[in-house]
Amino acid sequence: MAGAALLIIGTEMLDPAKADANGPLAREALAGLGIPLRLLLRVEDREESIAAALRAALETCEVVLTSGGIGPTGDDLTREAVASVLGRGIHEDAEWMGTLEARLGERGRALTELGRRQAHLIDGAGRLDNSAGLACGSFIDLGGRVVALLPGVPREFRAMLVEGVLPLVAAKFPGKPDTRTVRFTLAGLPEVQAEEVLRPWYGREGVDVSILPSHGVLRARFSLSAPPARDLAGLEGEIRAAASAGWGIHLVSDEGATLEEKVGERLLDMRWNLAAAESCTGGEVTSRIVSVPGASRYFLGGLCAYHNRAKVELLGVSESVLAEKGAVSEEVALAMVRGARARFGASCAAATTGVAGPGGGSPQKPVGTVWLAVGTPRGERTQLLTFPAERATVVDLATNYALFLLWKSLQGE
Amino acid sequence: MAGAALLIIGTEMLDPAKADANGPLAREALAGLGIPLRLLLRVEDREESIAAALRAALETCEVVLTSGGIGPTGDDLTREAVASVLGRGIHEDAEWMGTLEARLGERGRALTELGRRQAHLIDGAGRLDNSAGLACGSFIDLGGRVVALLPGVPREFRAMLVEGVLPLVAAKFPGKPDTRTVRFTLAGLPEVQAEEVLRPWYGREGVDVSILPSHGVLRARFSLSAPPARDLAGLEGEIRAAASAGWGIHLVSDEGATLEEKVGERLLDMRWNLAAAESCTGGEVTSRIVSVPGASRYFLGGLCAYHNRAKVELLGVSESVLAEKGAVSEEVALAMVRGARARFGASCAAATTGVAGPGGGSPQKPVGTVWLAVGTPRGERTQLLTFPAERATVVDLATNYALFLLWKSLQGE
Repeated sequence: MAGAALLIIGTEMLDPAKADANGPLAREALAGLGIPLRLLLRVEDREESIAAALRAALETCEVVLTSGGIGPTGDDLTREAVASVLGRGIHEDAEWMGTLEARLGERGRALTELGRRQAHLIDGAGRLDNSAGLACGSFIDLGGRVVALLPGVPREFRAMLVEGVLPLVAAKFPGKPDTRTVRFTLAGLPEVQAEEVLRPWYGREGVDVSILPSHGVLRARFSLSAPPARDLAGLEGEIRAAASAGWGIHLVSDEGATLEEKVGERLLDMRWNLAAAESCTGGEVTSRIVSVPGASRYFLGGLCAYHNRAKVELLGVSESVLAEKGAVSEEVALAMVRGARARFGASCAAATTGVAGPGGGSPQKPVGTVWLAVGTPRGERTQLLTFPAERATVVDLATNYALFLLWKSLQGE
Repeated sequence: MAGAALLIIGTEMLDPAKADANGPLAREALAGLGIPLRLLLRVEDREESIAAALRAALETCEVVLTSGGIGPTGDDLTREAVASVLGRGIHEDAEWMGTLEARLGERGRALTELGRRQAHLIDGAGRLDNSAGLACGSFIDLGGRVVALLPGVPREFRAMLVEGVLPLVAAKFPGKPDTRTVRFTLAGLPEVQAEEVLRPWYGREGVDVSILPSHGVLRARFSLSAPPARDLAGLEGEIRAAASAGWGIHLVSDEGATLEEKVGERLLDMRWNLAAAESCTGGEVTSRIVSVPGASRYFLGGLCAYHNRAKVELLGVSESVLAEKGAVSEEVALAMVRGARARFGASCAAATTGVAGPGGGSPQKPVGTVWLAVGTPRGERTQLLTFPAERATVVDLATNYALFLLWKSLQGE
């Protein structure tokens, strides 16, 4: 089976925290052709480094894509590095020069000497037109393998990949497999525990598994591919059975819907509406509910009663309960749910109150102590969380567990 | 100058969306020794692929670190791949075997046949102890360059890097340079415009620039390094001058503080407090303000009045203004600011109302139309945004611009 490498070229991309939009796009598009990504290489703008990475890619992969380094300036060195590895020259493509001049002319600008580099092509390469930018790409057929040079700007990369590269790669490596994707959303489960179900599938031929954990919610994806003749339904059934048996109540969606989408669906089913009352989560529960398009059909609003005065005056929490039990208590969480239902006139509500930290903790209520409460026409329920963590993590965890508690209540579970 | 490569090994890491905690840590730690990261390679669990990536790394870099693939199971192939590239064998380290047996014994567990692999060492390598896990690492001195094999689990990677690898690398490549980091936070500026100031610094010797844009807010970082003799103050001054001249009012912090931190600082300076009233941003403004530790000193709370009924009943927006001007209007944004100040008893407030989409747009008010308003004891101001974008992006943009408008008002600008 053919495999692919993607070289992300640009010194600024050596910052691992810098998100790369082209990788996920290329990976998914190539998976659709049955070609898994084997190497994902971020490389500085230096000819030797690009050349070394390219040699590694050519050694192990049939499809090699590069992103970036084909612009006009002096630090755009991808063409030069690729040409030197392949022992080829570089020439100016006359037709693309004409396109460049025409496009710049329309904007009343002239082509500079550096700008001409955007019409440079590796000898023997096919030209990849750029419908979204000025630099043309190169597509080089080496017999058993291909190399394609694309621009790094995500809009240009996407256009050239879809319009130029994918059809050529599909023609070169035919026998496009059947593919299926199964997406799961899990809540309230630690990653190590969730992974028990995934582990047997890692590295299995034709199965690509990925998992994205984020503080109480996990998204797992299985991308399946098999030769056209073979049926994937059996494999998919096996995966769904393992997921359902292994994850149980924590399996919120087997279609990749989010927790907040499932909450919304369920509210619409029941013809109920919702309000939120938050303290430590500071608007995050509200924000997640509103992130679903069409949330206005069931969401009335949320109050972040950060200061105790707001809890008393705007939610009707009693001052004596606050004084006696403290703001972080089951009683106050329940009073917030009741206040939110009354003030917004909502059939359901969710509330959070806790110690997000870094300050404010005590031996009895350390940082990470959070009380959750939800109320629906069927009743009320509460939950205590104690996850010592950083402030932002406590907020995320409390938000996800509050949504999960709400979802379970709406399910009647 | 020595450069470094990091190989992130693991088929699951070929998912570009999967965050990698070890890359940022290694990059920053090596930068502290004056060693820039040149290659950041994500590689599947396949011996040929790991070997090809390692050859590329050794060709161009003096310091090569690997993360992952040294555990006990069959898909842990890093040791084998490295040994084969270097033409060396692998042996069992008797001392580490003893450690393994003792550690497992304490937990009442026996060492399995596969488990013994965690004591495997490449011939001629120094052993790297693992204070946070069971697999030991290898440190191989090749004369002009070094290779270190570390575990992929972030906690173990960190421990072994800090305790074992960095001291050895520092001893091997002495002349640790002086380093300085300058961090800027910008708001309300498109990335391409912000980059004008950065561009002259990309690729400059001893200057490492990174930029992280996120919908209206950008964080830029300059990491400077120079031989001990040379003074970096001049270079830093040059950068600060360029930043201040090029970014002007958009430069919110030259110490890397966030927009919400600067808002908080300013409120404390003025001894004012704050409330928020949100519609389209759905709690995001509130959530950002609360994300700052100690926000309780100036933040009273936020109301997300998503439904018009909540705008009327809980914020006192007049029904006739809503009917006449529509919920997305300057008048309603101002009424929300006034309502929030009155209901929470706050000296300052910020409000948002807009069309986040994907539905709800009209020719007069297309998706992305957002009215912002802020009020302080000095007065009120409003701003209209029209950024057509996806729902989540509209929310982020509106939140960042609302915080920026608030910050400018608090500055008296």
